[in-house]
Amino acid sequence: MKIHLCNPNTTASMTEACALAGRAVAAPSTEIVATNPADGPVSIESQYDSAWCVPGLLDLVRREEAAGADAHIVACFRDPGLEACREISRGPVLGIAEAAMHAASLLGRGFTILTTLPRSVPVQEGLARKYGFGGHLRSVRPLNVPVLELEDPTSAAADKVIALTKMARDEDGADCVLLGCAGLVDLAKRVSDETGVVVLDGVVAAVKMAEALVGAGYKTAKAGGYAAPRPKPYTGKFTAAAPE
Amino acid sequence: MKIHLCNPNTTASMTEACALAGRAVAAPSTEIVATNPADGPVSIESQYDSAWCVPGLLDLVRREEAAGADAHIVACFRDPGLEACREISRGPVLGIAEAAMHAASLLGRGFTILTTLPRSVPVQEGLARKYGFGGHLRSVRPLNVPVLELEDPTSAAADKVIALTKMARDEDGADCVLLGCAGLVDLAKRVSDETGVVVLDGVVAAVKMAEALVGAGYKTAKAGGYAAPRPKPYTGKFTAAAPE
Amino acid sequence: MKIHLCNPNTTASMTEACALAGRAVAAPSTEIVATNPADGPVSIESQYDSAWCVPGLLDLVRREEAAGADAHIVACFRDPGLEACREISRGPVLGIAEAAMHAASLLGRGFTILTTLPRSVPVQEGLARKYGFGGHLRSVRPLNVPVLELEDPTSAAADKVIALTKMARDEDGADCVLLGCAGLVDLAKRVSDETGVVVLDGVVAAVKMAEALVGAGYKTAKAGGYAAPRPKPYTGKFTAAAPE
Amino acid sequence: MKIHLCNPNTTASMTEACALAGRAVAAPSTEIVATNPADGPVSIESQYDSAWCVPGLLDLVRREEAAGADAHIVACFRDPGLEACREISRGPVLGIAEAAMHAASLLGRGFTILTTLPRSVPVQEGLARKYGFGGHLRSVRPLNVPVLELEDPTSAAADKVIALTKMARDEDGADCVLLGCAGLVDLAKRVSDETGVVVLDGVVAAVKMAEALVGAGYKTAKAGGYAAPRPKPYTGKFTAAAPE
Amino acid sequence: MKIHLCNPNTTASMTEACALAGRAVAAPSTEIVATNPADGPVSIESQYDSAWCVPGLLDLVRREEAAGADAHIVACFRDPGLEACREISRGPVLGIAEAAMHAASLLGRGFTILTTLPRSVPVQEGLARKYGFGGHLRSVRPLNVPVLELEDPTSAAADKVIALTKMARDEDGADCVLLGCAGLVDLAKRVSDETGVVVLDGVVAAVKMAEALVGAGYKTAKAGGYAAPRPKPYTGKFTAAAPE
Amino acid sequence: MKIHLCNPNTTASMTEACALAGRAVAAPSTEIVATNPADGPVSIESQYDSAWCVPGLLDLVRREEAAGADAHIVACFRDPGLEACREISRGPVLGIAEAAMHAASLLGRGFTILTTLPRSVPVQEGLARKYGFGGHLRSVRPLNVPVLELEDPTSAAADKVIALTKMARDEDGADCVLLGCAGLVDLAKRVSDETGVVVLDGVVAAVKMAEALVGAGYKTAKAGGYAAPRPKPYTGKFTAAAPE
Repeated sequence: MKIHLCNPNTTASMTEACALAGRAVAAPSTEIVATNPADGPVSIESQYDSAWCVPGLLDLVRREEAAGADAHIVACFRDPGLEACREISRGPVLGIAEAAMHAASLLGRGFTILTTLPRSVPVQEGLARKYGFGGHLRSVRPLNVPVLELEDPTSAAADKVIALTKMARDEDGADCVLLGCAGLVDLAKRVSDETGVVVLDGVVAAVKMAEALVGAGYKTAKAGGYAAPRPKPYTGKFTAAAPE
Repeated sequence: MKIHLCNPNTTASMTEACALAGRAVAAPSTEIVATNPADGPVSIESQYDSAWCVPGLLDLVRREEAAGADAHIVACFRDPGLEACREISRGPVLGIAEAAMHAASLLGRGFTILTTLPRSVPVQEGLARKYGFGGHLRSVRPLNVPVLELEDPTSAAADKVIALTKMARDEDGADCVLLGCAGLVDLAKRVSDETGVVVLDGVVAAVKMAEALVGAGYKTAKAGGYAAPRPKPYTGKFTAAAPE
Repeated sequence: MKIHLCNPNTTASMTEACALAGRAVAAPSTEIVATNPADGPVSIESQYDSAWCVPGLLDLVRREEAAGADAHIVACFRDPGLEACREISRGPVLGIAEAAMHAASLLGRGFTILTTLPRSVPVQEGLARKYGFGGHLRSVRPLNVPVLELEDPTSAAADKVIALTKMARDEDGADCVLLGCAGLVDLAKRVSDETGVVVLDGVVAAVKMAEALVGAGYKTAKAGGYAAPRPKPYTGKFTAAAPE
Repeated sequence: MKIHLCNPNTTASMTEACALAGRAVAAPSTEIVATNPADGPVSIESQYDSAWCVPGLLDLVRREEAAGADAHIVACFRDPGLEACREISRGPVLGIAEAAMHAASLLGRGFTILTTLPRSVPVQEGLARKYGFGGHLRSVRPLNVPVLELEDPTSAAADKVIALTKMARDEDGADCVLLGCAGLVDLAKRVSDETGVVVLDGVVAAVKMAEALVGAGYKTAKAGGYAAPRPKPYTGKFTAAAPE
Repeated sequence: MKIHLCNPNTTASMTEACALAGRAVAAPSTEIVATNPADGPVSIESQYDSAWCVPGLLDLVRREEAAGADAHIVACFRDPGLEACREISRGPVLGIAEAAMHAASLLGRGFTILTTLPRSVPVQEGLARKYGFGGHLRSVRPLNVPVLELEDPTSAAADKVIALTKMARDEDGADCVLLGCAGLVDLAKRVSDETGVVVLDGVVAAVKMAEALVGAGYKTAKAGGYAAPRPKPYTGKFTAAAPE
Repeated sequence: MKIHLCNPNTTASMTEACALAGRAVAAPSTEIVATNPADGPVSIESQYDSAWCVPGLLDLVRREEAAGADAHIVACFRDPGLEACREISRGPVLGIAEAAMHAASLLGRGFTILTTLPRSVPVQEGLARKYGFGGHLRSVRPLNVPVLELEDPTSAAADKVIALTKMARDEDGADCVLLGCAGLVDLAKRVSDETGVVVLDGVVAAVKMAEALVGAGYKTAKAGGYAAPRPKPYTGKFTAAAPE
């Protein structure tokens, strides 16, 4: 099985971190093709950044579809472009926020999302409601910590994750915590060990769920809103993106 | 007051139709600057098309912000890129689906959306729920009629709109109907006269609501999720789009 | 265009304050007819007060309808009698709480309502849910301040508004704040300047939205629940109120 | 125990029908004081009628409070003035639509409301949502039958109730049906016998629930939104209604 | 009227306490038959305990149905087995959590549930949502107090109930508090007197509501999801439980 | 990895069918231990049947936990006992209705459940709402076909499944259909081929999702509502079931 794992920002080191996290849990027979666009934002911290990552994401999904990908993962916790990706994919497409929320709703009775910036709080709440998990979401707590610091599980930033996880558990009643960035597997393990809370990394959840859906023989539904885009011309710089 | 009315597809004739509809209801002191991108889909009938119109839309919003626009309207009934536009605008930004739903919820007790294709039904339902109007939405009914035919208010397509409007009224209990495409003012009037239902065109609703919000002195809120994007590099072809 | 702005309590000074606030933002061609009933409560601080203001409100709406009003505004933040007013109006009818919530949901990602008394909290929550904005409402915070003090934007009461606005922003995640009383335009401006939060006054929002709906050519929908009341006798003191 | 059963329209024959229905199920020790206002609409078929019945209703609730009523019932299926009544009552207050919905949600898995006119459909839906029973409501079906015909359980109108009840059961999946008018006990029994559906009359439900709440020693909660109205002057014709 | 009040755990002293509480408020003509299973958990503090109490509960409901019970009450605040009981009962069946929530939603504008253990919080929230009272629920607060201590209204545990009730009132905006265990009538009265909050005991609410539904002549609806189970064999130790 | 697949009714042939369906999609390294209780209903068609299958289910989960199961699947489309199972499991527990709904919400924009009997419709609706998929559920359609006939994919019953699937697609707007019984893999494939709709079998979905959650290293959360039951005595026949 071939899973296309697309980090939609243009920072290759993050792509590599996601790929490592995904490959660490993937089945031996799963090939993970990790990509990122050449064009677009170096990180995604607003809906504006999110919008600008989508053309590159869609180009990569089209390319990997042609190359035989069985599923696609959008490795950004805002789940940009998910519906558009589904329209151009035969196989399943998963966002990492979406996958982590699904997993958490199966494992516990209420989850908290740790997000990097306060401005992301309403975005995360909106995703939870859209997916149906408004009743499972107990809180979204901003870390106010740079992403890069989080990558070191022994940093002071990691201590902040632990502190917020305890607050989520004790004040908000969460028994699961979602790490709202990609590829923090080592941190997830440390936090879980110290708090007793189930800590979920979105890349891990998405890779395993993608394997599950493909393994079940499921495809993206084409009889409704995810039907392939109707063929039509695109103009100017985006001519090549036109659906055929 | 200067309102930037952006048709996010690349078909100039549609831009002109929207501009005409908007100018017909705008206050004398309102200047409507109608634009469309040079690059992207010629029409928007999928979330894939919708995603590809957004870069051009954002470029135009940035340009018109710099040129002093007091408000922006996204003239596509899927309301693409709305949140990203708000992050880069000082003044209000309105989608035409959003504006029509707000107006309908103030004028009647339940509305139906007439959309062109069956595949758009879940998109429209999703927008209604996101904006808070899930309880006001009585149905989404697809027309299965080409957009161009709709532009002629004496065509057979217009008869279909009338027939569906009566069904919305009599079977679904709607007292307002939203025309899910842009710039059909003449049709709206004819349908309303023949059915007794309030028929809303999104461009008309959006232009007047934009005037209202600007006239009230309101700006897009910058203390939360719509704060300006943080400055950062964008790479490759999209370098110029980077937030400063 | 003639907008009937009805303060449904019997205190003429409040009517005048509302009229001033409305006229300050109205278009030059808009005439604002400000009224209040002769009979009823001097202020509205309970659902009991609210019920007793409605007969006077309805009499005034009927009178101003006959005199050619294009729209009506109910200038009390509990939005009393809104549905009844719509049944007897051709043009649009807006409540000031309703108008402010609509505006806030278009400008920001979450709003807080500042209300005068703790007992009003569930009333405001109920209105938000009824209008569809349960997901946009972040909190309702009571001021515990007399209305009259609020009218002085330099008073200590104004300081309390600023303090609560900062709490709404920092603790509840609101980027818009609604002033749950009528005619506090000067205060709105000062609070907004000091907090960076968009502060909305309901009268301002309602006047501009009424202008928008009338300017769009929209009427209250008569094909459903807002149809004119069926003619029938009323008895006793209310004989003259009978629908014809 | 003394229960004040107020028919808020001014038609004494309907008051008598409600009183009969209520007394037929009341406990021997329950005294039912049936009243109707002298001033107001002869029947309630719009929110306008509903608004005009409230002053008379409130006057009667105040009078019967003073006379020692242990509970109050508002016998109109739009539940007018319920919150205002609760503010001025020590004991429980029940609307007949509210009581019937509560009972139906305890007896079955989904209910349909039969209402007289199509224009009432959104009103009933709104009440169901407000009370929390949006998920229990399967449909609201209008009878298009004059109320007076319904009072004869052998009339053709009764046949229509039976036909709609079967449709509610077979097409909408309802196992309970609420008769959306007052005092149709005989009809309820006939329809139930012929369809196997539980048919609820609101007066019956409200009388028994009022007895239950009073018998449990429960009072209307005064620590929050239903606190007694603050004393203040009322002006003009409504001076006597001022809260003390 | 004969009401079967089943304490589904196996501790006879709790059964007796429930019976006392119920009989104290029951009408003189009401006979309360209090039972508990011989087999199962001595107390119910998890969904696992809850599952194991259901067989005994169902056996008792079947036995008391055969003996002519007019209604059944499930006297555990998790409302175990309610739907199954309704399928095998002609008359109404009430859970004590369900009955208390219904009563609270009729008496006040928002309620808080006091539950014994933190682990019960999501269970109570889930029940409130299922019954339709998600909008009425203000909070669930755990007592962290052994049930037995609660039975003494002068104990320190009672002080904790009073403290939490004041927090529910002042911080959460509740005007009603539900005691999430059975048979604490004396405590309810003391807390209510000291806080001004309406305090509800589930057994009291359920007994009076059961009397109300039976007195109204209502039965459990059999035309839908609560129809009698289809006859079929059961095997092994549960052969005798097979529906006939 | 060892997955315990429990058919909670006592019919061994159904257990075998589920085991076959599960093994057909399981990874080579997955061992599926299929069980059914010795005691209880031969099939589950009511909440009464559902309640009586739970003791046997819990005994098997406890036994297989002790034997080292990594996850458990409850193979009945009513998802009986799910929460209780989670309290006594270290690894994940999945219901087959739950798993199919999760998968469908990831693959399409709206799903329909085909259930065997009309009486199951509200049960399925209730599960969808509880899991958060009320917005994804387009309809529940009863087949009125005996389960055994469904097992033959060439039977007339299969034609009925195809007919209902087309109705779900064309009338209800569903692009996914869930087969509301266990082990119909062959039928799922035929229906999907003939209708273009994604057809999901719950056992397949649950086995792959269980593998995914275990493969990700996830456990059931023990820091909240799914904590292990507190030790306590059980009495009588159920003494051995007492939590330790």
